[in-house]
Amino acid sequence: MLRVGLLGAGRIGAVHAKAINAHAGSRLSAVADVFAENAEKLAAEFGAEARSADQIIADPSIDAVLIATSTNTHSDFIEAATAAGKAVLCEKPVDLSLERAMACQAVANATEQPVMIGFNRRFDRNFRAIKAALEGGEVGKAELLSITSFDPAPPPVDYVKVSGGLFRDMMIHDFDMAQYLLGGLPETVMAAGSSVVDPEIGAAGDVDTAVVTLTYADGRLAVIKNSRRAAFGYDQRVELLGSEGMLQAQNVLENTVVKSTAQGVTGAKPTYFFLERYMSAYEAEWAEFVEAVVSKGAVPVTLDDGVAALAMAEAATLSKAEGRPVHLKEVYPRAA
Amino acid sequence: MLRVGLLGAGRIGAVHAKAINAHAGSRLSAVADVFAENAEKLAAEFGAEARSADQIIADPSIDAVLIATSTNTHSDFIEAATAAGKAVLCEKPVDLSLERAMACQAVANATEQPVMIGFNRRFDRNFRAIKAALEGGEVGKAELLSITSFDPAPPPVDYVKVSGGLFRDMMIHDFDMAQYLLGGLPETVMAAGSSVVDPEIGAAGDVDTAVVTLTYADGRLAVIKNSRRAAFGYDQRVELLGSEGMLQAQNVLENTVVKSTAQGVTGAKPTYFFLERYMSAYEAEWAEFVEAVVSKGAVPVTLDDGVAALAMAEAATLSKAEGRPVHLKEVYPRAA
Amino acid sequence: MLRVGLLGAGRIGAVHAKAINAHAGSRLSAVADVFAENAEKLAAEFGAEARSADQIIADPSIDAVLIATSTNTHSDFIEAATAAGKAVLCEKPVDLSLERAMACQAVANATEQPVMIGFNRRFDRNFRAIKAALEGGEVGKAELLSITSFDPAPPPVDYVKVSGGLFRDMMIHDFDMAQYLLGGLPETVMAAGSSVVDPEIGAAGDVDTAVVTLTYADGRLAVIKNSRRAAFGYDQRVELLGSEGMLQAQNVLENTVVKSTAQGVTGAKPTYFFLERYMSAYEAEWAEFVEAVVSKGAVPVTLDDGVAALAMAEAATLSKAEGRPVHLKEVYPRAA
Amino acid sequence: MLRVGLLGAGRIGAVHAKAINAHAGSRLSAVADVFAENAEKLAAEFGAEARSADQIIADPSIDAVLIATSTNTHSDFIEAATAAGKAVLCEKPVDLSLERAMACQAVANATEQPVMIGFNRRFDRNFRAIKAALEGGEVGKAELLSITSFDPAPPPVDYVKVSGGLFRDMMIHDFDMAQYLLGGLPETVMAAGSSVVDPEIGAAGDVDTAVVTLTYADGRLAVIKNSRRAAFGYDQRVELLGSEGMLQAQNVLENTVVKSTAQGVTGAKPTYFFLERYMSAYEAEWAEFVEAVVSKGAVPVTLDDGVAALAMAEAATLSKAEGRPVHLKEVYPRAA
Repeated sequence: MLRVGLLGAGRIGAVHAKAINAHAGSRLSAVADVFAENAEKLAAEFGAEARSADQIIADPSIDAVLIATSTNTHSDFIEAATAAGKAVLCEKPVDLSLERAMACQAVANATEQPVMIGFNRRFDRNFRAIKAALEGGEVGKAELLSITSFDPAPPPVDYVKVSGGLFRDMMIHDFDMAQYLLGGLPETVMAAGSSVVDPEIGAAGDVDTAVVTLTYADGRLAVIKNSRRAAFGYDQRVELLGSEGMLQAQNVLENTVVKSTAQGVTGAKPTYFFLERYMSAYEAEWAEFVEAVVSKGAVPVTLDDGVAALAMAEAATLSKAEGRPVHLKEVYPRAA
Repeated sequence: MLRVGLLGAGRIGAVHAKAINAHAGSRLSAVADVFAENAEKLAAEFGAEARSADQIIADPSIDAVLIATSTNTHSDFIEAATAAGKAVLCEKPVDLSLERAMACQAVANATEQPVMIGFNRRFDRNFRAIKAALEGGEVGKAELLSITSFDPAPPPVDYVKVSGGLFRDMMIHDFDMAQYLLGGLPETVMAAGSSVVDPEIGAAGDVDTAVVTLTYADGRLAVIKNSRRAAFGYDQRVELLGSEGMLQAQNVLENTVVKSTAQGVTGAKPTYFFLERYMSAYEAEWAEFVEAVVSKGAVPVTLDDGVAALAMAEAATLSKAEGRPVHLKEVYPRAA
Repeated sequence: MLRVGLLGAGRIGAVHAKAINAHAGSRLSAVADVFAENAEKLAAEFGAEARSADQIIADPSIDAVLIATSTNTHSDFIEAATAAGKAVLCEKPVDLSLERAMACQAVANATEQPVMIGFNRRFDRNFRAIKAALEGGEVGKAELLSITSFDPAPPPVDYVKVSGGLFRDMMIHDFDMAQYLLGGLPETVMAAGSSVVDPEIGAAGDVDTAVVTLTYADGRLAVIKNSRRAAFGYDQRVELLGSEGMLQAQNVLENTVVKSTAQGVTGAKPTYFFLERYMSAYEAEWAEFVEAVVSKGAVPVTLDDGVAALAMAEAATLSKAEGRPVHLKEVYPRAA
Repeated sequence: MLRVGLLGAGRIGAVHAKAINAHAGSRLSAVADVFAENAEKLAAEFGAEARSADQIIADPSIDAVLIATSTNTHSDFIEAATAAGKAVLCEKPVDLSLERAMACQAVANATEQPVMIGFNRRFDRNFRAIKAALEGGEVGKAELLSITSFDPAPPPVDYVKVSGGLFRDMMIHDFDMAQYLLGGLPETVMAAGSSVVDPEIGAAGDVDTAVVTLTYADGRLAVIKNSRRAAFGYDQRVELLGSEGMLQAQNVLENTVVKSTAQGVTGAKPTYFFLERYMSAYEAEWAEFVEAVVSKGAVPVTLDDGVAALAMAEAATLSKAEGRPVHLKEVYPRAA
């Protein structure tokens, strides 16, 4: 039985708490939060103790730490927890600062403790089916990947200001998806973006709509489209053109009912947002983490993966700022 | 906290055990089975006690009994459990004998204890969306209902022999669906059927493929198609033509991935069978039962509903045997 | 160059006139209509002459006669035209009277002239693809056929009164489709129907909504659903369950555009009615007729097919009237 | 009756010849081709005369000239035909040289003769439905346009060498589609491309797979994906995210049949290539040209539109060559 300490008792912390206790091989032991009240409430709900983060990390009876705190604390907690010999599952992104993330990467990797980054979409059964079909040779060799990722509604501008920007906050999932499906890292990153959805987001120095093109040394291309607003809900699609065919993961719909009237033929909308769409992916993510820790195998999403995705976000941010393609190695020497 | 005794530790019993303990308002207390070993194993898995059915029914600390035993024991257990003041959720069908079911109906209804019949499909979110749209007037008045219900593969002939026949064993779900969506009972039942899938099933006196037409006094029609075999999996669709449009509940697919190659455009199959398709429906079914029992409200599927569905199955069996439409009231006086 | 005389200058006559002249191997020579004005107008439009039906049939320079007159004249014209050595394409149904149709069948077949009945749906590329896949063994052996055929709106009650009833006027297409896809004739016909769409249609002695089940000697089943009204347009679907899979021909839509908004995901409606849906089928039908006549090959839909479809309609009418399954051979000795 | 001279008797010339004679208001009078034999054959087929291009342009009885010759002759013929007072429909692209096209634009516009460029996709009913829905406000304000355009198979490398490159030869259709749907011209063009499909194409100095991002001054974005090879056929999709929803034009399929087997649920492929997909669009294009000429109204696709699309292709070519975003006004002063 894996005993787990949870750092961060917010919305995503609660999602993880549920997954931890739903798993037959793990149990939530302790919860920490900067607001003690939040930690107490969540701990009570799941039969765990509310403690401080330091106490949790120092407790030898705790096997694994799940980091779901604010992003600016991720690197510190990863370093502390791995130093204390814990297995770590940390929410994305590793950090908003690529420099800090790379430093953390060096420190944490040196401990050889398992560190997994919570790119939940890798555990969605639809994207997995894409990867399995690709690896099974069902569409030949990958040539052109397209990722569409639209949120239902933009976050508050106050959030935007501290988010690190769309590329680090939102598109980082898609950078990881490109990494997951295509393997390896792109050579160049070209970003275009605007605040056509909400000028306030532009005034805050960010974009709300963006297109990023990735080029790979072997000729493969990938294009990622993001929008902070899709009136119909959460749009999460992947399309991969290969030498012998195409794979598409379409949206998951609220139900399968179709209504035909004089106004047309209407089906259900996509499930509303990430909790609805990815709840079972969070469960699968946790199960694979437990499996890797228990079996002393490799975690399915490494800290290196997390830093690489952040590097792509950094390159996209720079590309947008300077109006030019950016070579990934400009910002991430390991990509060279 | 509703304390629940489970009668029957087979496959469907295990499904219910899981739903009972997953619900915050109920707990599995005891499990009985004709094979004590089965009861013990399931009880151990869910932290309950293995006991005899009689002990469970006699135990005043048990609030509700879930009957998931073989069909020929349903009526007896319903009568015993209601007599003992328990709330009852009984798997379908009520009985294979309509006569016995009607006797049980009289006895159990007299106790005024809640008795719910486990027509799980009523709790599927897709069929619920059909009903909600119909009741919301989105397609006008119902005129013609079509239900398609194909199993992935026929059961063993030995099962067929004791099953009560396709109409009572399999189509009974669809009879209840007609009842759920259209309300009221049909006037006539016309059945056609054959053993085109497997002549052994015909030799055993049953059909494996059937079409049943229901006519209603107000002119509405319903048609139900059943097959014991669909090579592509579990086919569960409903289509309702109304005066102002049509509603269709399509199959739930294994994933949303579509592959386009020189051979065509291929998507996933429907989820394989009832456990895959209806697991969340079983959970919703249990939640509504708990809610009804706790709030002393009406259960969403009554014993009368269960008997009426059985009466339709009886009428279909007779119609097929005699090659003529059967008036429901010939077999079920309450339909008059 | 096949020289063609057209009898009947109504809406369907105009459709055929267009197909005749669009074909490189045929030309419209003459047009007749009970209203001379109609014949003159259509003839002028297509560079043909307006003449009487008798003149057309007597004219040795005319190779083929297309009969698109009112149904009660079909048998007479078939007999006269075949007697005069013409190839004949006659609109469905052969007749409203099965007896008269059978007499015509005997007379016309004796001439050995080609007589084709205009079951246009056999030439729709979607239904053809179903047949090709079935014959190619792609879903194994046919077991259960379902045909859905809904018109967008009921005809005027005055038309209903002279139409021969839904089974002969509308469902006859579906009886032929069953014949086309399954081959052979059913053993029994069981009809249910009502006037739930429009009580006036019921008062006129007809139904507007119907379900007919066909049983075949080898265990295959077919079910046909008709409604005179589908608010969303012309619904023309076929679904065939085989021993190794299922084939479905879905509706042809007005366009491929899908709109996703907060209200749902909406696509286009089916093409509105038979002219929109089947125009290219009429062209293909004519092309195959020309090909058969020119090559002295067999026509793809024979007079026997037309009479057999009418016999099924007769049996359905009787079944509905008497509330019992009807053996096809009761009304059509050749089915024995 | 519009009398039409056709320059160019190749494959696309034959498509136009058919559309010209199928239209009640136009007739093909004369055909020219650099290979006299081709002109004679096509002329004979459509009841026209084979003549030289000069003769056609000089003939006062000819009202309109359709230019379907090789691209390097387009500008000369546009100038000559407009100087001779003809209405002109010219195939895309206007020229491979933007400079030459701009010179032609100045000369031809000065004549005030109608000149229409044959961007056939504007006349596809699906893309038209997108535009109509957008203009009808059904998805609010346009924000992000995505165009997918894949050919079934790459052309011979010899063709690639003289084609002007993918951006001018293939993506020019998509540049025009962006112009058609969004209105106005983009500010910048950013291209990425590779020869991942066929290294020979790369060796010939071209790309076979490309992603181009367009940015607009008001914040709108567009992304165009091209591949010279899609194993499943011709992929022609448009997707437009607006402030209140999304519009998608999906592929046109060969038929509507879906087959469900143990291997999955398979539908038909897209129609194979442009002739299959766009034949009715060519007819609609011609009808609108005739309508504009006869009514002395504006043609629906102007010479300016054609030159602007070419300018985008030029900018994309430059962007790819220099690895940087290109401002459209760098290559096309009128975009300023």
